[in-house]
Amino acid sequence: MIIIKVLLFIIFFANLIKTFKSFIVNYAIIMITISIIGSGKLSYNLSEAFISNKELRLNEIYSRNNKNIKLFNKKIKFTNKIDSLSEADFYFILTNDDSIEEISKKIKTKNGMILHSSGTKGKDALSNHLNFGVFYPLQTFSFNKKIDFTKTPILIEGNSQKSLEKLKELCRILEVEFEEVDSKKRLHYHLAASFANNFTNHILSLTDELVNKFKLEKKFFIPIANETFKKFQSNKSKESQTGPAVRNDVKTLKKHEEILKKSNYLNLYKIITKSIKKNDL
Amino acid sequence: MIIIKVLLFIIFFANLIKTFKSFIVNYAIIMITISIIGSGKLSYNLSEAFISNKELRLNEIYSRNNKNIKLFNKKIKFTNKIDSLSEADFYFILTNDDSIEEISKKIKTKNGMILHSSGTKGKDALSNHLNFGVFYPLQTFSFNKKIDFTKTPILIEGNSQKSLEKLKELCRILEVEFEEVDSKKRLHYHLAASFANNFTNHILSLTDELVNKFKLEKKFFIPIANETFKKFQSNKSKESQTGPAVRNDVKTLKKHEEILKKSNYLNLYKIITKSIKKNDL
Repeated sequence: MIIIKVLLFIIFFANLIKTFKSFIVNYAIIMITISIIGSGKLSYNLSEAFISNKELRLNEIYSRNNKNIKLFNKKIKFTNKIDSLSEADFYFILTNDDSIEEISKKIKTKNGMILHSSGTKGKDALSNHLNFGVFYPLQTFSFNKKIDFTKTPILIEGNSQKSLEKLKELCRILEVEFEEVDSKKRLHYHLAASFANNFTNHILSLTDELVNKFKLEKKFFIPIANETFKKFQSNKSKESQTGPAVRNDVKTLKKHEEILKKSNYLNLYKIITKSIKKNDL
Repeated sequence: MIIIKVLLFIIFFANLIKTFKSFIVNYAIIMITISIIGSGKLSYNLSEAFISNKELRLNEIYSRNNKNIKLFNKKIKFTNKIDSLSEADFYFILTNDDSIEEISKKIKTKNGMILHSSGTKGKDALSNHLNFGVFYPLQTFSFNKKIDFTKTPILIEGNSQKSLEKLKELCRILEVEFEEVDSKKRLHYHLAASFANNFTNHILSLTDELVNKFKLEKKFFIPIANETFKKFQSNKSKESQTGPAVRNDVKTLKKHEEILKKSNYLNLYKIITKSIKKNDL
């Protein structure tokens, strides 16, 4: 009988601990806290990822000019006082590259980790702090579409092994794919991403201009653009290049140039065509 | 009783006709017949669509040099005698633009319709025939991946109402989306498609070069390239342009140029950057 009573007591006690633990997690006593500095596109997208994660708490967002804050989730607290941010585990500086260093100096924290998300800036812009690092998502962001961070690779860097471990823990909580790279390699990623997104996006927006100018059916270009993306995905881009440039079809190139001669894009057309010709396999 | 006998006779006779019709269709007596001239990428992809369609019969493919014929379906008959092609409903000239006119003159047919698939060549290159027209698929083709024609827009043109109707019937049998456009508009489509595919494909193949050169993880670029395509699909390309060029972030642009200065792509980088800057919203 005593054994049963002891067992029952153990079960009761174990349940009590469980309930207490769940209470602590739910009521944010051991939650990881975050502050964001900046209210641009990345801030918008990251704040969405933070507030929808049960293990994280977004303390506040610092916004100097209150420019985009109407677009953000209404639950988020905004402040325009950077020197009185409440203590947090992570401070994300999501402003333009040139202001990172200056902002870093204004943040007061003892053990909190300062992060920036620049693809090109070294981590040392944050070196006035004890713990700092880089959290660079290889993605393009906008206000009109929320990015799924579980499908966004994050390139990370920390000033110490301790910082790095803390950052990795955050990545695990966010369920993102991450990789540790140094500042030089991060710049190489940033350059290649400028091709994969900025440049292709520009070419596609010029396609849209041609579609509008000549009153073409936009939907007709979806299958061919999709095919282009699929070939990139399966590493077939170079070997499957088609079109007049790679064939050196001079007559067709002339016809295209004739159409573009009064536009701003003739020079661009010629340079890309020349570059494709050089790459002929 | 007589009425019933008459009715039974009618039913029997109707079934007989049905059986006979099915026999005719199945045994290809009234099938639509096709010949292809040329054995390139489009020939490979179109021949696959023809032989997998029950209402069409691919008579033969003319190939001058037998270059790629090993890649084609083994059931297909090849010939190297263009002047003795068997009579067909459609003759697809799928060779390079410059040889279309010459080949058209060599084909002997009374009522067969001659087609080419060029985006830039007028239909009149085929005017030595009674029935002729254009069947231009707005897509990029390769030998390593079969294209689904039901998702490929076809731009068509015919020399007469009769030809056009015949061509439309073929498109319906192939279950493709088609649109009648004149030669001028087809050239506009071709130019815009060169941007949507040839140019973006080239930029993506340069991304691959950077990935290889700097030993980056290729898979990290799939989400950002996919996002670029999705923005094009939802008409958001121009308004969602990001990166150093659109921000006129001179320091970052200089860092990128520094990396590229010993490559062939510095000039291309500068021209596209300049073009993005002009397009800033």
